[in-house]
Amino acid sequence: MRDPTHPTRGPGGDLDPEDWGVFESAIETVLRASLEKMRTASEGRVWTPPPDGLKQRLVEPVPQAGLPMDALTQRLLELLPYGVGNTHPRFFGWVHGAGAPGNLLPEIVAAAMNANCGGRDHIAIYIERQVIEWCKSLFAFPDNSSGLIVSGTSIATIIAAKTARDAALSFASRAQGVGQAKLTGYVSAEAHSCLARAFDMIGLGTDALRTIPVTAAFEIDLQALTEQVRRDRDNGCTPFFVAGTAGTVNSGAIDDLVGLAALAKAENLWFHVDGAFGASAITSPDLAPRLRGIQRADSIAFDFHKWMHVNYAAGCVLIRDGGLHRNAFANRPDYLAANGEALAGGDPWPVDFGPDLSRGFNALKVWAHLLEHGTDKIGQSIAKNCQQATYLGERIAAHPDFELLAPVSLNVCCFRYHLADASDAEIDALNAKLVARVQMDGIAAPSTTRIKGHLAIRVNITNHRTRREDLDILLTALEGYGAGSA
Amino acid sequence: MRDPTHPTRGPGGDLDPEDWGVFESAIETVLRASLEKMRTASEGRVWTPPPDGLKQRLVEPVPQAGLPMDALTQRLLELLPYGVGNTHPRFFGWVHGAGAPGNLLPEIVAAAMNANCGGRDHIAIYIERQVIEWCKSLFAFPDNSSGLIVSGTSIATIIAAKTARDAALSFASRAQGVGQAKLTGYVSAEAHSCLARAFDMIGLGTDALRTIPVTAAFEIDLQALTEQVRRDRDNGCTPFFVAGTAGTVNSGAIDDLVGLAALAKAENLWFHVDGAFGASAITSPDLAPRLRGIQRADSIAFDFHKWMHVNYAAGCVLIRDGGLHRNAFANRPDYLAANGEALAGGDPWPVDFGPDLSRGFNALKVWAHLLEHGTDKIGQSIAKNCQQATYLGERIAAHPDFELLAPVSLNVCCFRYHLADASDAEIDALNAKLVARVQMDGIAAPSTTRIKGHLAIRVNITNHRTRREDLDILLTALEGYGAGSA
Repeated sequence: MRDPTHPTRGPGGDLDPEDWGVFESAIETVLRASLEKMRTASEGRVWTPPPDGLKQRLVEPVPQAGLPMDALTQRLLELLPYGVGNTHPRFFGWVHGAGAPGNLLPEIVAAAMNANCGGRDHIAIYIERQVIEWCKSLFAFPDNSSGLIVSGTSIATIIAAKTARDAALSFASRAQGVGQAKLTGYVSAEAHSCLARAFDMIGLGTDALRTIPVTAAFEIDLQALTEQVRRDRDNGCTPFFVAGTAGTVNSGAIDDLVGLAALAKAENLWFHVDGAFGASAITSPDLAPRLRGIQRADSIAFDFHKWMHVNYAAGCVLIRDGGLHRNAFANRPDYLAANGEALAGGDPWPVDFGPDLSRGFNALKVWAHLLEHGTDKIGQSIAKNCQQATYLGERIAAHPDFELLAPVSLNVCCFRYHLADASDAEIDALNAKLVARVQMDGIAAPSTTRIKGHLAIRVNITNHRTRREDLDILLTALEGYGAGSA
Repeated sequence: MRDPTHPTRGPGGDLDPEDWGVFESAIETVLRASLEKMRTASEGRVWTPPPDGLKQRLVEPVPQAGLPMDALTQRLLELLPYGVGNTHPRFFGWVHGAGAPGNLLPEIVAAAMNANCGGRDHIAIYIERQVIEWCKSLFAFPDNSSGLIVSGTSIATIIAAKTARDAALSFASRAQGVGQAKLTGYVSAEAHSCLARAFDMIGLGTDALRTIPVTAAFEIDLQALTEQVRRDRDNGCTPFFVAGTAGTVNSGAIDDLVGLAALAKAENLWFHVDGAFGASAITSPDLAPRLRGIQRADSIAFDFHKWMHVNYAAGCVLIRDGGLHRNAFANRPDYLAANGEALAGGDPWPVDFGPDLSRGFNALKVWAHLLEHGTDKIGQSIAKNCQQATYLGERIAAHPDFELLAPVSLNVCCFRYHLADASDAEIDALNAKLVARVQMDGIAAPSTTRIKGHLAIRVNITNHRTRREDLDILLTALEGYGAGSA
């Protein structure tokens, strides 16, 4: 590769290491400590509050002079113990992935390449395309479908909703705005807030996203949906979009995607699926049938960083009709024109499919993660988490002090510690306290939500390190705290 | 830190390495090759087209079984030579940062922590806050201003424009949509396409963003702007937003930000500054006066991954009135409620200031980069690039075969090879060919744009590795190709 017209130069650029030996030794130190952190991910406390002293040391003026390497190394290493806790097997809060050490391999390569994946003709673009091809094949999407690696389901949802918006308005909306179009969309009352956020972002407003009641299984009520669509048409609105959820955040419920696909077709609605974590279950032969209908979606939004455990942040949007997708985003000024050859080739560019123009090489860690583990192992881990949630649900149901607040559909178990002769407010306060306590003690990290108005202890298991004994440890701790508070 | 109630466990999770020795050896291999790639960033070809064989090997079914570590390592390492080229000192295309090896330190730590920076009380949140505080201080923003680390200026611009939109509509737009509000915004004809894209995204449409002519210096014509605002008011529109550019992509021009600030105040417009790369010049005492007026902006969007050379992707939005910013994005459902204590504390959360709910720990590499180098060194490198662009402009102006197409304002030099007795179309075609040729030969990577209708060879110097001799090498190559084609 060495070209004689490009002789070896002396020292590097202004921001290259002054001394590569010192730099490599710093890398070695940081690497050792980071590997140790990863190797012991299942040990010790789940979460430790960041110490006041450390927080205070962060407060300093913007640095004008640089730090020596050893000082920088120390500044970095002292942060390691004070993460969110999601790498630990007893982290059950929100919907966090646990990450995987193997991600370090592509992260190192990506740092060396420092590729901007907005476009142009270089290998990173081909890697991203291949990841998208893999995702299309997982969901049996057609050849002319398209996709983009994004930061997560929130942006994926905005991209999908904008494509649906523009398609509904013959793309005149891109220039003219949404104006007086009375477009209406539909989600269940259990849908994630990212959908309302997308409607807010794209100018339709959250009121235009109708909230449909759910069944006892926390799934969208198709009858109520049909009636709402009818009512909106009667009132001069233009229904254009419906989102089904594959794995609600509160309880893991999966909407009837086959029913939604049929309804969307009959009513001429764009059928979006929010599969933020649940879509990953497509990798499990046991669970994939639960997602039936997702293959008929017009768009799917999901994350790699949740149940697939790619490190933060990486998600994906898939759009069935790649032409519509491109029409909603393509817009290249002179300085981004494709030259048709050389570095400015490689058409189409990712910038034609989403809002970002500069884009990191996030696709690399997704690609390497799937190559390293394969979908079988990922699917088995996902299925294991669902079995664990079922186990926890059974233990809760059989326990005199706990009350199950929602059926366990997938990987989420919502329950509460119950007190006889206490008001609802007192029970809510107690359960909030139990969650805070078990977090503060470093034993486990469930989060809270509300189910039918009750504050719930929410145990979400998207964690390849969790074992049954971890759930037992959580219950034992909650039992103890609950008994002590009662 | 080890807690006796949490005994050491056996092997790790489903996606942890099966054999840590093998894994660490793979890390070592990848690290060696990546460090060598970084150490020799100034050598060899600028860009090499990805070989067909490699591209074809990427095309394979979604992997069901995982790869052994050594095979995965080889798959990753064979990508290294085929990046964009932006790490090389003769990469002058578009506006790419060159990156810095030091970023590997925080990337390793971030991979070990795998923090989700959407919210909660953990150290990553405090790091991001501190980076925002530093940025506020660089631009003399007030205490109650706010900010967010984002993927880049495109998203930053969307966040700023949405905040401005909602503030103009008393935040009713979040629920009701933009409807019939005839909001109009203003940018120069040289403004970046991300501004029109933002207007498209947020439902106002690109027509609502008026394009104002530029002066001979490619700066927004304030008189023409004033007249357009007047005309729009007369026609029943509501002018609400004006964006100045600090460093246009075509020619590096900086709008009269003081004049814009005054006009925005007089006309009651939100004053946004697109400082994608140019805002970084605030770190150079020589250049900072050129940005005068930026301190009066209502919002600033800029990138760390361009002229500051943080690795992709990292940008920032700052909003003068943090309350407006939060009002435009805050929206927490039950499952994201702040508990006030323990892990769910740490209010406010970053999710209250932007569209993403899951967020990677991008702030760490920005923080570490600023600590490692300090703003002085970064500013010196930026000033050096401007001197280099001036030097190139002087050489072009003095050269019989080249024609300077725009004054060199900052770090961009646009010119073309000139042919006597040739049509405009022939000259355009020749210059496109020269750019492709110099890229294909691996000698340098300028890009193209159009200046006053002419296809320009565009040399953008946001590169801490560039030296004057690199510009001489580029010119010599272009001269040779040009003479050969004439």
